Amino acid sequence: MRFDSDYMEGCHPAILERMAAMNLEKTTGYGQDEICGSAAGRIRSAMELPDAEIFFLTGGTQANAAVIAAMLRNYEGVIAAESGHIAVHEAGAVEAAGHKVLTLPQHDGKLCAEALERYLKSFFADETCGHMVQPGMVYLSHPTETGTLYSLEELKAIRSVCDAYGLILYVDGARLGYGLAAEGTDVTLPFLAGLCDAFYIGGTKVGALFGEAVVFTGRRPVPHFFTTVKQRGALLAKGWLLGLQFDTLFTDNLYLKIAGNAIRQAMRLKRGLLELGFSLYADSPTNQQFVILENRLVSRLAEQVSFNVWEKTDERHTAIRLVTSWATTAEQVDSLLLLLSELKGL
Amino acid sequence: MRFDSDYMEGCHPAILERMAAMNLEKTTGYGQDEICGSAAGRIRSAMELPDAEIFFLTGGTQANAAVIAAMLRNYEGVIAAESGHIAVHEAGAVEAAGHKVLTLPQHDGKLCAEALERYLKSFFADETCGHMVQPGMVYLSHPTETGTLYSLEELKAIRSVCDAYGLILYVDGARLGYGLAAEGTDVTLPFLAGLCDAFYIGGTKVGALFGEAVVFTGRRPVPHFFTTVKQRGALLAKGWLLGLQFDTLFTDNLYLKIAGNAIRQAMRLKRGLLELGFSLYADSPTNQQFVILENRLVSRLAEQVSFNVWEKTDERHTAIRLVTSWATTAEQVDSLLLLLSELKGL
Amino acid sequence: MRFDSDYMEGCHPAILERMAAMNLEKTTGYGQDEICGSAAGRIRSAMELPDAEIFFLTGGTQANAAVIAAMLRNYEGVIAAESGHIAVHEAGAVEAAGHKVLTLPQHDGKLCAEALERYLKSFFADETCGHMVQPGMVYLSHPTETGTLYSLEELKAIRSVCDAYGLILYVDGARLGYGLAAEGTDVTLPFLAGLCDAFYIGGTKVGALFGEAVVFTGRRPVPHFFTTVKQRGALLAKGWLLGLQFDTLFTDNLYLKIAGNAIRQAMRLKRGLLELGFSLYADSPTNQQFVILENRLVSRLAEQVSFNVWEKTDERHTAIRLVTSWATTAEQVDSLLLLLSELKGL
Amino acid sequence: MRFDSDYMEGCHPAILERMAAMNLEKTTGYGQDEICGSAAGRIRSAMELPDAEIFFLTGGTQANAAVIAAMLRNYEGVIAAESGHIAVHEAGAVEAAGHKVLTLPQHDGKLCAEALERYLKSFFADETCGHMVQPGMVYLSHPTETGTLYSLEELKAIRSVCDAYGLILYVDGARLGYGLAAEGTDVTLPFLAGLCDAFYIGGTKVGALFGEAVVFTGRRPVPHFFTTVKQRGALLAKGWLLGLQFDTLFTDNLYLKIAGNAIRQAMRLKRGLLELGFSLYADSPTNQQFVILENRLVSRLAEQVSFNVWEKTDERHTAIRLVTSWATTAEQVDSLLLLLSELKGL
Repeated sequence: MRFDSDYMEGCHPAILERMAAMNLEKTTGYGQDEICGSAAGRIRSAMELPDAEIFFLTGGTQANAAVIAAMLRNYEGVIAAESGHIAVHEAGAVEAAGHKVLTLPQHDGKLCAEALERYLKSFFADETCGHMVQPGMVYLSHPTETGTLYSLEELKAIRSVCDAYGLILYVDGARLGYGLAAEGTDVTLPFLAGLCDAFYIGGTKVGALFGEAVVFTGRRPVPHFFTTVKQRGALLAKGWLLGLQFDTLFTDNLYLKIAGNAIRQAMRLKRGLLELGFSLYADSPTNQQFVILENRLVSRLAEQVSFNVWEKTDERHTAIRLVTSWATTAEQVDSLLLLLSELKGL
Repeated sequence: MRFDSDYMEGCHPAILERMAAMNLEKTTGYGQDEICGSAAGRIRSAMELPDAEIFFLTGGTQANAAVIAAMLRNYEGVIAAESGHIAVHEAGAVEAAGHKVLTLPQHDGKLCAEALERYLKSFFADETCGHMVQPGMVYLSHPTETGTLYSLEELKAIRSVCDAYGLILYVDGARLGYGLAAEGTDVTLPFLAGLCDAFYIGGTKVGALFGEAVVFTGRRPVPHFFTTVKQRGALLAKGWLLGLQFDTLFTDNLYLKIAGNAIRQAMRLKRGLLELGFSLYADSPTNQQFVILENRLVSRLAEQVSFNVWEKTDERHTAIRLVTSWATTAEQVDSLLLLLSELKGL
Repeated sequence: MRFDSDYMEGCHPAILERMAAMNLEKTTGYGQDEICGSAAGRIRSAMELPDAEIFFLTGGTQANAAVIAAMLRNYEGVIAAESGHIAVHEAGAVEAAGHKVLTLPQHDGKLCAEALERYLKSFFADETCGHMVQPGMVYLSHPTETGTLYSLEELKAIRSVCDAYGLILYVDGARLGYGLAAEGTDVTLPFLAGLCDAFYIGGTKVGALFGEAVVFTGRRPVPHFFTTVKQRGALLAKGWLLGLQFDTLFTDNLYLKIAGNAIRQAMRLKRGLLELGFSLYADSPTNQQFVILENRLVSRLAEQVSFNVWEKTDERHTAIRLVTSWATTAEQVDSLLLLLSELKGL
Repeated sequence: MRFDSDYMEGCHPAILERMAAMNLEKTTGYGQDEICGSAAGRIRSAMELPDAEIFFLTGGTQANAAVIAAMLRNYEGVIAAESGHIAVHEAGAVEAAGHKVLTLPQHDGKLCAEALERYLKSFFADETCGHMVQPGMVYLSHPTETGTLYSLEELKAIRSVCDAYGLILYVDGARLGYGLAAEGTDVTLPFLAGLCDAFYIGGTKVGALFGEAVVFTGRRPVPHFFTTVKQRGALLAKGWLLGLQFDTLFTDNLYLKIAGNAIRQAMRLKRGLLELGFSLYADSPTNQQFVILENRLVSRLAEQVSFNVWEKTDERHTAIRLVTSWATTAEQVDSLLLLLSELKGL
């Protein structure tokens, strides 16, 4: 049993079928082909943003680093939650491109507009602020690293602060599908597209073999991004492979449908964990679930299930992460809950 | 009819079949899986270099830039032919990582040991050389940008110069299969592996959907390359996709077998061009063929065939590039030759 | 009255005299001259480290950035207190060179060995640490940003942790003279030189017009640092100007003598502040003094004295920084204390 | 006798006197002081450009690298003559900031408008130009590395090409004084200020101890350049030292007056060399003179005079560089000519 991540399986079968069908056709390189054009058109429709510019890259770290390198000036940094992916788990990709990640405390994995504004006010009030990296962009993840979601109101408030201080707003959507498909969220794709300067729609974790669709919403010009992508080694020769995947995912709403499966299984898992009497480490409405177990139970579980150890919560307990995906089955969740129930009884 | 590049088709069908078979298995991420291990083992065997370190990346520009960033110190640059891919067509990826590309004139697309030595002798004789970028690495492509090949003796001579001056030798093998499968070459994979500090075995252009296998041969330690790969956005989450492709290509010698097809079709094309009375721009033994046509003929050909315009050779003539691949059929070559013969007669 | 920094005056008069005397002599450029050689010799003697390599740069930010760029590999970052100069006030110079500053909480402006070890242990225990910037160097300032000093024992403990984890230890000595001249310190220049991999001896704030002496103590090779200095725009054409200043400062112990004056005046100021009943924000044994005043008093004082506002300590109080230098006179301190006493009485 | 460079002496005595007079005054740091303001005002007047922005940096390499980093976007490179200082002698400072130097052949050390236009036309005609570094700036030196000067017409023609292609025009004025003071030049400071987007007025080689005045002429906004300067370690704490030097040099036309002395002595040297029957390597109207000598004579001369060996012109001859400065005396030139006449006769 494996619940360690949402990128353990390959891709939705419809993608592989189509890839096989087109395999020996000769296709123009570097994303200049028709299927990339079609995929971009479908995404623009889904976003209700007909003039958005869309680029397909193979991974999240490269999407983040390319967007940040292209949009920031040399003296600017990017503000992120201290737990943000770019602040921790991208091996310094942002710094390698010459920019500082300016971290603020997180609450439930999120930045909040008030803290952001307080930081900016205090930054510009400091006489020595010319000696410091200038804040140029706000980076959010939706969902966050702990599976939580911003509300529409929270995002609007952050946008207002960005507007007041002239900052770019960028959203890392590595798991965007799971955010959009969550129960009770009021954040839609068109809303997000209207809100941000740039964001990306994650494919790798939501049904694609690999691939992220970077969207520039038109608020700011980003000239020559194609060259930036090439410079960063992020330009796939057979770009049609990326176009094909997004074209498939954005046909008949497939992206949200399969994301919905992950959410349903995650909610079944969460309810099951609570029914077994476990405490949650974070109350996540998306496909990452965080539960606190006794250390002894963690060890026993690890013999039969793969998952992520998240954090020691006290001497005797540890929070672990359990992740569902578009491909997770009800049986897999049931088996996990059964095993936990057995181990707990011991 | 399309002869513009060797990355227009998808991949060898055996790869797609295997991908489909494994698609819903849950596999460990980031290349830490068994199939990547198996692929690395097969490559080590083919190279006869049991201790080589192997990493799978998705593209050539990122392979070049990651290796160069990892192996050079901040004050060092990389020597390349002025026509080298890193010097021209990688959008400044090497410079974006902080290193200068030091260019030398090319002959048949190649660097030569004598010119290299002359340059180095003159560099270190200059009193002001401390004010200049220090040469740290020699970058070659095999085959080169114009399809030519180094001989075993030429490579040994370059290695000697590298040894005399303490330089790293790195070979860009984007089309390595086509070089190894060429008629009459004395350069083998084990020879190359014994010669270089690092090189990469190109998959994208030789039967894979995408992917390049970076090899560190053990002459120099390259610590934490995994982190460098991550930092550069070049770490594929589903690394097993890369392992699977190379595992397939290095089973039963498939890599060289399918490269051999491209060579056979390229040689048929070359002979056909010569029989039609055309002059060659370069005498390439590999899958890229360069022929000089009257401008009028180039225009007519372009109405029915896609290819690359390479260079105006005089007022009335233009060299074009025609590329075969592992997937090119004899019929495709025959059709092209027939068309050229018809257009020429007009 | 100006107490805002220790770089408000020019230089010790002996320096200017000697500069005038040599002004029209023709001298070899880029620090290859005899006076730079002499200065390096005197510093080596003072450090009791005959094989140290010494380079003269014009400023602290460039010294820090050049040393860090030269000593770290591309995948490494530098650990600093969150209040460290490189973490805040160098406009992202370290990041612009591609490296992350990894911050740890400070205590009295200092890093402590225990916290450092805890961080490193936890870092390497994390399965995902290959996805993160690798710690490569520890950066300390002595004195720190708040004027505090490490003890010999504290530094030895940090060195032990560095040794255990293979980290470089680098000390920013922008105000080193004031640290060495402080009452009661057990840290000497030879001790520091024996402890660190690299450090710099600050001139700009301690009697020079400008200039910092970067010392590589020989624990690690740092090849081609001359080229790094040039690359970073930090190589002064008339390098003899730097040599002359350090040669003068390291003749007859001038460096420590004039630093001693700053300390004496700072201690007089501190005693005076305490006698007037003010609270200290930090108990600094060096030339930066931090006192907490009522906001009303801060405003009044600012009408006649220049100083730095440091931090609001509560709604009604603010900490300010008052700095003495090698050139501060007893009269200047007396005047300030008199003024404070008058303003307090109002 | 030393004729190897124009930065061997200190500074004009008026500067040192004034430095001594102000030495113990307390002055605001980082160039925010009155004397920097005054110097900027005088330079604006001399340029007849009242709205220009002026920043004082300590050296030429840092001026070039800071301007280029601030004005180019990540995907852009800078076009320079292959002999340009940034292309050869700055240790890769431009590349270290992430940008490629795109070199074109030089003629008499200069770029020409026609070659520039040809290059740009051909660049943008290339279908693959999106895979290449985009040209963003043209870099010229005036005088060039071989002492030659652009004419007003040549500069206007280059400006036209820049305008046609949207390129920034930047002039490296390390020896600008010697260019402006040359006999027969039609390029004036106001003309240059009206022509460029940015340039710098060299102090280090023309009478200052050190220092270059970077000018942004107002054609393009360059926000937060102060922060860029800090980030690059180029912000002098005691910025008033730079202001004082330029304030002095731009009072009563001192800058051009002392540059005129170098020109007079260089012209006397040139006439003397020709009268002695030597051939010139380059016909320089400025303070760098290039003469071709027999190898035997070069060796003999080197026993008594320091100079730069420039290039072997054939098996038996070598070009050397002889440089005058603002401080060169007629006696020094006479002695050199006498010695050459004696050595020649042997």
